[in-house]
Amino acid sequence: MEGSNARLINVGLVGISGYTGMELARLLCAHPSMRLSSAVSRTEAGRKLGDFYPFLRHLPSADLEISQFDASRLCANCDLVFLAVPSGTAMKITPQLLAGGNRVVDLSADFRLRDPNIYEEWYQIPHEARSYLESAVFGLPEIYAEKIRQARLIANPGCYPTSIILALFAALKNKLIEPASIIIDSKSGASGAGRKAALTSLFCEVADNFRAYGLPRHRHTPEIEQELSHIADEPIRVSFTPHLVPMSRGILSSIYASLRDKAMRLEEIHKIFSATWEAHPWVRVLPLGSFPETRHVRGSMFCDIGLALDKRTGRLIIISAIDNLCRGASGQALANANLMCGLEPDTGLKLLAPLP
Amino acid sequence: MEGSNARLINVGLVGISGYTGMELARLLCAHPSMRLSSAVSRTEAGRKLGDFYPFLRHLPSADLEISQFDASRLCANCDLVFLAVPSGTAMKITPQLLAGGNRVVDLSADFRLRDPNIYEEWYQIPHEARSYLESAVFGLPEIYAEKIRQARLIANPGCYPTSIILALFAALKNKLIEPASIIIDSKSGASGAGRKAALTSLFCEVADNFRAYGLPRHRHTPEIEQELSHIADEPIRVSFTPHLVPMSRGILSSIYASLRDKAMRLEEIHKIFSATWEAHPWVRVLPLGSFPETRHVRGSMFCDIGLALDKRTGRLIIISAIDNLCRGASGQALANANLMCGLEPDTGLKLLAPLP
Amino acid sequence: MEGSNARLINVGLVGISGYTGMELARLLCAHPSMRLSSAVSRTEAGRKLGDFYPFLRHLPSADLEISQFDASRLCANCDLVFLAVPSGTAMKITPQLLAGGNRVVDLSADFRLRDPNIYEEWYQIPHEARSYLESAVFGLPEIYAEKIRQARLIANPGCYPTSIILALFAALKNKLIEPASIIIDSKSGASGAGRKAALTSLFCEVADNFRAYGLPRHRHTPEIEQELSHIADEPIRVSFTPHLVPMSRGILSSIYASLRDKAMRLEEIHKIFSATWEAHPWVRVLPLGSFPETRHVRGSMFCDIGLALDKRTGRLIIISAIDNLCRGASGQALANANLMCGLEPDTGLKLLAPLP
Amino acid sequence: MEGSNARLINVGLVGISGYTGMELARLLCAHPSMRLSSAVSRTEAGRKLGDFYPFLRHLPSADLEISQFDASRLCANCDLVFLAVPSGTAMKITPQLLAGGNRVVDLSADFRLRDPNIYEEWYQIPHEARSYLESAVFGLPEIYAEKIRQARLIANPGCYPTSIILALFAALKNKLIEPASIIIDSKSGASGAGRKAALTSLFCEVADNFRAYGLPRHRHTPEIEQELSHIADEPIRVSFTPHLVPMSRGILSSIYASLRDKAMRLEEIHKIFSATWEAHPWVRVLPLGSFPETRHVRGSMFCDIGLALDKRTGRLIIISAIDNLCRGASGQALANANLMCGLEPDTGLKLLAPLP
Repeated sequence: MEGSNARLINVGLVGISGYTGMELARLLCAHPSMRLSSAVSRTEAGRKLGDFYPFLRHLPSADLEISQFDASRLCANCDLVFLAVPSGTAMKITPQLLAGGNRVVDLSADFRLRDPNIYEEWYQIPHEARSYLESAVFGLPEIYAEKIRQARLIANPGCYPTSIILALFAALKNKLIEPASIIIDSKSGASGAGRKAALTSLFCEVADNFRAYGLPRHRHTPEIEQELSHIADEPIRVSFTPHLVPMSRGILSSIYASLRDKAMRLEEIHKIFSATWEAHPWVRVLPLGSFPETRHVRGSMFCDIGLALDKRTGRLIIISAIDNLCRGASGQALANANLMCGLEPDTGLKLLAPLP
Repeated sequence: MEGSNARLINVGLVGISGYTGMELARLLCAHPSMRLSSAVSRTEAGRKLGDFYPFLRHLPSADLEISQFDASRLCANCDLVFLAVPSGTAMKITPQLLAGGNRVVDLSADFRLRDPNIYEEWYQIPHEARSYLESAVFGLPEIYAEKIRQARLIANPGCYPTSIILALFAALKNKLIEPASIIIDSKSGASGAGRKAALTSLFCEVADNFRAYGLPRHRHTPEIEQELSHIADEPIRVSFTPHLVPMSRGILSSIYASLRDKAMRLEEIHKIFSATWEAHPWVRVLPLGSFPETRHVRGSMFCDIGLALDKRTGRLIIISAIDNLCRGASGQALANANLMCGLEPDTGLKLLAPLP
Repeated sequence: MEGSNARLINVGLVGISGYTGMELARLLCAHPSMRLSSAVSRTEAGRKLGDFYPFLRHLPSADLEISQFDASRLCANCDLVFLAVPSGTAMKITPQLLAGGNRVVDLSADFRLRDPNIYEEWYQIPHEARSYLESAVFGLPEIYAEKIRQARLIANPGCYPTSIILALFAALKNKLIEPASIIIDSKSGASGAGRKAALTSLFCEVADNFRAYGLPRHRHTPEIEQELSHIADEPIRVSFTPHLVPMSRGILSSIYASLRDKAMRLEEIHKIFSATWEAHPWVRVLPLGSFPETRHVRGSMFCDIGLALDKRTGRLIIISAIDNLCRGASGQALANANLMCGLEPDTGLKLLAPLP
Repeated sequence: MEGSNARLINVGLVGISGYTGMELARLLCAHPSMRLSSAVSRTEAGRKLGDFYPFLRHLPSADLEISQFDASRLCANCDLVFLAVPSGTAMKITPQLLAGGNRVVDLSADFRLRDPNIYEEWYQIPHEARSYLESAVFGLPEIYAEKIRQARLIANPGCYPTSIILALFAALKNKLIEPASIIIDSKSGASGAGRKAALTSLFCEVADNFRAYGLPRHRHTPEIEQELSHIADEPIRVSFTPHLVPMSRGILSSIYASLRDKAMRLEEIHKIFSATWEAHPWVRVLPLGSFPETRHVRGSMFCDIGLALDKRTGRLIIISAIDNLCRGASGQALANANLMCGLEPDTGLKLLAPLP
């Protein structure tokens, strides 16, 4: 007597007006086992989702009415809630949702740094939910799948950290490089700056332009160092410089590090990388001589990795590409939610880059 | 004893290196009931599909070896063949495939014009397969679904004609406008020029630029006029001017026409348009005051239509937007193939625009 | 005893933070006979011009301190003042400056429409300086040079009107077309929306997208109609639809009109256009078969015009391209100022498009 | 009795169809003391310059007829010749022109590397004009102005090397950094790939994409190392990785190097950089906290330099931005020609970035 919807998992989305909320709305509309049952936005409450996002018209969720945040209603209606809200807001909301029995995937930075003092130093906000940090799981599915399955609170990784941790994992785990030598030069599309009406994000300020920003202390630095140190099992400090590319989506990270064994051949390194990621189809170690391009991963969960060896200087060059909104935020959040709900991680995420 | 692949429909794709071939490869890789069993390319034969198209790596079809054209092999291996080859080539290949018992969806212009003399006048090539014109079906699913289901040869519509015919259908069918007054100003992304190494298609020649082209006699004109005349049941001549937009995908057509009844209100017109398309979810008549944007249909099958009434001049303005590669070419080809194979037309085509 | 600066004309610029102010700053920094002696901005007062606009560093005006608006100081320091402020603000400032003996080139719409009632209908603001409308001169140098030389107040034309009036002048003056048939489909780069932190102007909302806007009643319509009516010496109503192109600069207008004499040949029309503009080097009537591209006029004063004849429908198609910020705003303002100061109109305006 | 043209220096341009030739044509058309008297192109001979480059219409050089290469005619007509031809061609032409008494500014790589063996190793072409290498002067005006004034053959620097040598000059000259630690991550607009009809340069392949290329052995590496070694007076090897940005113009180089004296403060370093470039207005050392953007130098001769100190790792980060076509090629060629002709180096080069 049960309808086909009976098996659907009800999920809530707090914060729909930013680019990560927009991407989650897209992904959830196409998910075979989840249903967006609550969409929350302070500024858009009362409108229908399809009116706010015309690209969702004629889809099942188009008629969903956007509502104000109400923790108890979310707990009653949803099996799991995604938070696509600014850092500082998530830490206020999360405890209410967890207390109400809900599970939370938080896309902000609030639960990523295990040490709240480091959070306060880099984000310049007092941490108001310190007691939740211990149980929060850093949601990188390839590395922490087991913990994610059991988690009630996921700290979804930042976009730059995702591109960098996946790129360096094999090299650090296998002790191929000197940790003190790591230099990371990352480039991101403009959606990384969020959907805020800021002068510096205008088309005419971004198009036909290229610039660095946030240097020398971008907020993603401690998150990168925390995870790389954990993988290498020793404290690591990196130089990390992000740049703004005149494109909407995508992150490409160019990473330079000195080889420990200068005699090591590129083919051996490539073999180690390939073996490391063999069981993880989203991480594609490209054939030697091929290098990642952001368009090849656009709108998808793939992380493409290319390798070069600068024999003249003994440096390994690792290039990685991800889609910042999908793999670097909302898609990864959904993969974590899939794991938490006992689904295959790629449910609703078998996405291919539309080219060109 | 049959595996799960037993139910898959085997399809062939002749011409993989252009943008329509690329788009079909993307769509077929994600199709639940079809399998790309032959990929043909003169220049790329011998390579694996995933090596030629890095964005397909780690997908089922990635290991498919690209082959040379061989009609009998295609007939043996495939239930249906897509032709993504230039106009002039399709007319040479199609008879062999049909004779071998295959069904063909031709994305070129070779079978679109019912009158071969008009073809020869506008394309400046002799038509070598005139006898097939009568049975070829113009593949616009909303209008010709019944015929498409029975067809063995589909002439897949051009991108501009698709955006224009769908925009004008309700107005002409219901005799709202004066046919002699129609002026069509269309704008297309650069993928419409194809994936040829041409100087005029270079990034530095297209970016930060806008221009008209092909005027006053673009080749899509007779196709537009043939179909509009058919809908209106009277001969129609239009002014059609295409322009090149510095973006990869998308077509927006701005259409101007004088109302027959100058007293008609926009609300009435909107009602007629909405009723006309009610049963066709891919055509979205936007609420009054909303207008289409190419990004809202990007990579999808949607055709968004917006209406304005210039009361001061008595002109109806219809704006339509489609994705030129998906709705205007490969996705529409796949919808036609779905119908020919007895599937729901939207199988494998429940696509949402990735924004931004 | 006089230094070389003695001959320099001192000019003021009120409103530096928008794109037209930015463009005027660029042009004035390179002008051989003018010196930017006052730069006014409510929000940026106190900063140096070169700190606010890093691209002006190491140039003479870089050290100029931005000041608050002060009519008497401007009158004391400047021979002429440019107003790059919003419509509604210019009408408040202009009377003070004129009363103080200054001359004004106003880039806003406040003095463009001779009939203040039409202004109030389209701009929805009461006109507070009606008595100045009669003496204000519409600043299109090719058409009104004599009046501009004598003027004390210039109403600098809008960007769309400039591209349209120059395109249609020869056809209307010589009565080649039917005035009631004119349809104008214009396309503009994103700088036309101004330098405001608006969500709809963000890179991620504009890039890889194309859309119409402002239809069916864009504010430039009455300005276009006023000037076209004046040229044709009969009242004219047009359909005018602007679109947004994902590029920073440039306007291309595609104009459709029925020929009065359907037997007229394109060569004759071309001859008439060429003769009309022979003495005006900024208007370039392209050879038959060539059509304008916005990049060819980028950052310059040129207006390129191309012609096509759709013999099948009897329509003349005129395509024109200008740079919206230079020819369509700040460069034209400077040409007007040149004329007012007794200089050659192209002083400091011998600008070439940087390609690519 | 002499007209005003009597004082003009006649210059020739061999190779007009590429982007550097196009840029030289633009610059020469506006030069107050030079006249483009010969424009040479194998493929375009016979056409008028203004027909080939529509943006030059209505300018003095528009009527110049493009001719075939003829060394004796060039020597008869020109005081100086610019070579905007591919590497490998310049070495064949140069000896004829020098023998005919002409002076040559070569924009190719043929005379940049003092050691012809290194040239042959990296360019894979035999060097056919080895005897000219000794007298060729590397044309970086800030560093080699004296030699340039006397030179008869200028090897115009590459675009990447220009951005990198200027960025590192002050640090190496003053021994602030460890030479073995230099890592250079450069990003260039698409015009750097030249105006060739190549698939990889198509709009649809470049737009909305970011990728590295040429690694780990881009051809500019030995040129960078030659000049840096010369400045530092010790052999230097660098890691150099270029990337392709979806924009037309501009290069931004992000350079990482370990400080020799880890206690050095950023303010001291900034002071040294500022003092080094004090007398060279084209090099703008930005205030601390400001960083270069390619748009601020677009179409100009400026090289903007920004500095950051990563105290946590002891690394100095130098960011530099130039326009690849103007400062990185044709504008620098013209500055060299100015010096060779006894003119001020910035004659005809007082160029400002048009923003946006």
